[in-house]
Amino acid sequence: MAGQVTSTTFDLDADAAQCLAEVITFVRKSRSVTRPEIATSTGLSRTLATKYIDVALELNLLQSGEVGQSTGGRAPRLIDFNPNAGTILVAELGATGFNVAASDLNGNLLGTTFTRVEISDGPDVVLALVENSFDDLVGSLKIKNLWGVGIGVPGPVEFATGLPVSPPIMPGWDKFPLRERFSTKYKVPVWVDNDVNLMALGEHALRNDPITNELIFVKIGSGIGAGILTHGQLHRGAQGCAGDIGHIALSSNEKVQCRCGNLGCLEAVSGGLALIRDAEVASSKNESAHLKIRKKAKLRIEVRDVIEGSNNGDRWCVERVVKVGSDVGTVLATLVNFHNPSLIVLGGSVSAAGDKLLASIRETVLSRSLPLATRDLQIRITDFPIESGLVGAVEMVISELFSSENLRKWVSVGRPNQSSIHV
Amino acid sequence: MAGQVTSTTFDLDADAAQCLAEVITFVRKSRSVTRPEIATSTGLSRTLATKYIDVALELNLLQSGEVGQSTGGRAPRLIDFNPNAGTILVAELGATGFNVAASDLNGNLLGTTFTRVEISDGPDVVLALVENSFDDLVGSLKIKNLWGVGIGVPGPVEFATGLPVSPPIMPGWDKFPLRERFSTKYKVPVWVDNDVNLMALGEHALRNDPITNELIFVKIGSGIGAGILTHGQLHRGAQGCAGDIGHIALSSNEKVQCRCGNLGCLEAVSGGLALIRDAEVASSKNESAHLKIRKKAKLRIEVRDVIEGSNNGDRWCVERVVKVGSDVGTVLATLVNFHNPSLIVLGGSVSAAGDKLLASIRETVLSRSLPLATRDLQIRITDFPIESGLVGAVEMVISELFSSENLRKWVSVGRPNQSSIHV
Repeated sequence: MAGQVTSTTFDLDADAAQCLAEVITFVRKSRSVTRPEIATSTGLSRTLATKYIDVALELNLLQSGEVGQSTGGRAPRLIDFNPNAGTILVAELGATGFNVAASDLNGNLLGTTFTRVEISDGPDVVLALVENSFDDLVGSLKIKNLWGVGIGVPGPVEFATGLPVSPPIMPGWDKFPLRERFSTKYKVPVWVDNDVNLMALGEHALRNDPITNELIFVKIGSGIGAGILTHGQLHRGAQGCAGDIGHIALSSNEKVQCRCGNLGCLEAVSGGLALIRDAEVASSKNESAHLKIRKKAKLRIEVRDVIEGSNNGDRWCVERVVKVGSDVGTVLATLVNFHNPSLIVLGGSVSAAGDKLLASIRETVLSRSLPLATRDLQIRITDFPIESGLVGAVEMVISELFSSENLRKWVSVGRPNQSSIHV
Repeated sequence: MAGQVTSTTFDLDADAAQCLAEVITFVRKSRSVTRPEIATSTGLSRTLATKYIDVALELNLLQSGEVGQSTGGRAPRLIDFNPNAGTILVAELGATGFNVAASDLNGNLLGTTFTRVEISDGPDVVLALVENSFDDLVGSLKIKNLWGVGIGVPGPVEFATGLPVSPPIMPGWDKFPLRERFSTKYKVPVWVDNDVNLMALGEHALRNDPITNELIFVKIGSGIGAGILTHGQLHRGAQGCAGDIGHIALSSNEKVQCRCGNLGCLEAVSGGLALIRDAEVASSKNESAHLKIRKKAKLRIEVRDVIEGSNNGDRWCVERVVKVGSDVGTVLATLVNFHNPSLIVLGGSVSAAGDKLLASIRETVLSRSLPLATRDLQIRITDFPIESGLVGAVEMVISELFSSENLRKWVSVGRPNQSSIHV
């Protein structure tokens, strides 16, 4: 792989950009490596490896770190990724509020804030608040080297354009130009994806464990969706809508009408909105003392009230949580037989129900999946309920910034900006 | 990527083997290319590309072909893959018989034969017959350059070792050393996989259409299973048992006991064996005039009798075929939402039921999957009921032979043999 790098402008041809991307990505994932290690792992000759390491050092993307172990001769100086070369802003939009964060290039979150707002208030209201939160972070953290923005939304997204596609719980957001809005304001490249895809990426990055390479991340929030990793990469499917498990039919016995028009969809029966709907009825019918009290104390019942009731042993709430588990478990049993993941992680507001939910899901999956597929299968609730989506958004932005195609575009101008990448 | 090739023995280091594998695979998939095209597509410098092309020419894996179009100077000589360098023997074992074939290295089948035998007769009986068929092909085709053997079996296989793992319809085959048996006899490397994985690979190779990159191949034979391609590669899952859809539960209404111990598994309700079981009952209860006649004419009813009845308009048979379609369709609707394939292909004995089956599956999938996931989805019956499994077995063997790891092992001795690869 030959590549021309001039020392003044870093105009790279495609091969050179590929080599540079490989060098940077290897160092970023490995931390503190020697020059010979970089050459061996990327398959570059020592001469070429040296060339691209020097380019990356000059770009300030890599840095010369501590002196490593000597193996006889002069002790080698270790090369490190420079996580402070740039800063990323990310937002994860949910049905009833959003989290924002700033992050360095290693995915270390430098500050997060939560803002309560209904996503159904529409993009103008919500995005003005997101921009306020971003601006607060930029001010308080004195961010001067913004390199990119990542946004997660609770609905389907056409990844190439960053446009939401008929998102069911996001009225007014269909095809809203999120990328254009943020890239115009912040002058940096912007990527948008479905929130649960980002949670899967974030879980993978935060856990740093090979078991997460074959992962199904299931978000049980207002709706229900899944993010799928195969060999550690997102499986998006032919139209990019893989993982849309909320509208899988539970059984012909379920007569609940879903907003999609079908009967008995998983999320219509056991998503967060279904839980609230059923809790309101239970409260008004005096079927749950706990919910009756909660209803009196405030205007409307929330998912957390049902979870609190379950934790306190309120019978209706316990049974309802167990029913969510058996419904989600029924669908997961099918997916386990088909996909054979090594790990299922649960997130979203309903996953806060904890052990009672988890036990019910596990029991259903184990009773209905094949022994070989469940032999080493782990099912757990995320340890990172807030971070996974945010860190996943950072991972999305960084993997795009350091793809050879995009890297080639922006190293010629020295830093990522909106006009060099989204052309 | 630097690599040392000595002109006498072709002892390659790992990088060199990788370069050689890339050159060979590119030419094999592209057919008739120029030297500069090979360099450009593999990312090798012209010097390195020339080096590895010459190695491959000397190994007789590539050959200098016709003279191509001139672009000004001397017209370039085109380089071709040499499909006749080696021959592959493949067998696809089914519940009631097996197909064998010989093939060149492009997957062109040079001769196929079918032999009727029950797989439940056990490995000694069945494999002696397979070896007879192989020997007949070797004799009649005068095969002198055997390079590998590929075997497909109707049950789960641990791919790394080639061992069947508790295959339900193959009593006596659990952990039977298929690889050892054939590699000892034929002195060439042997690979074994689940039959439906091979059908998916074969469909991909035979169709040569990008739509097959995101494929679910569903075999409805005695049992029901699926082979999954993502980006044109097999998705095997964490334990290698992805695609085992025969034991997905249809609904809590189905009370049929499956051999796996659960109630209402897809294949217990609508696989080929279930069809025969129900047809025997229908015949004895006089519910089907067609089956009554067939039963009288022979000892037992087969799947093809039910299909014939359906084609002839026998009401019981038509309804039973439509029920298979709605049951398979119910499971596929779930998988379409989850996986978002671009193509579903049906194979196996029951798929011969044709349009009535296909219409029923399509209707069920369309009514229960999300519009975005079905917008461009194609569902069809394979055009290659016999070839897909055999060609898939050839593809498996060839992709293993030309993996950089295996290529490195056997080019040092000049041709693939058992002891150089399975060490």
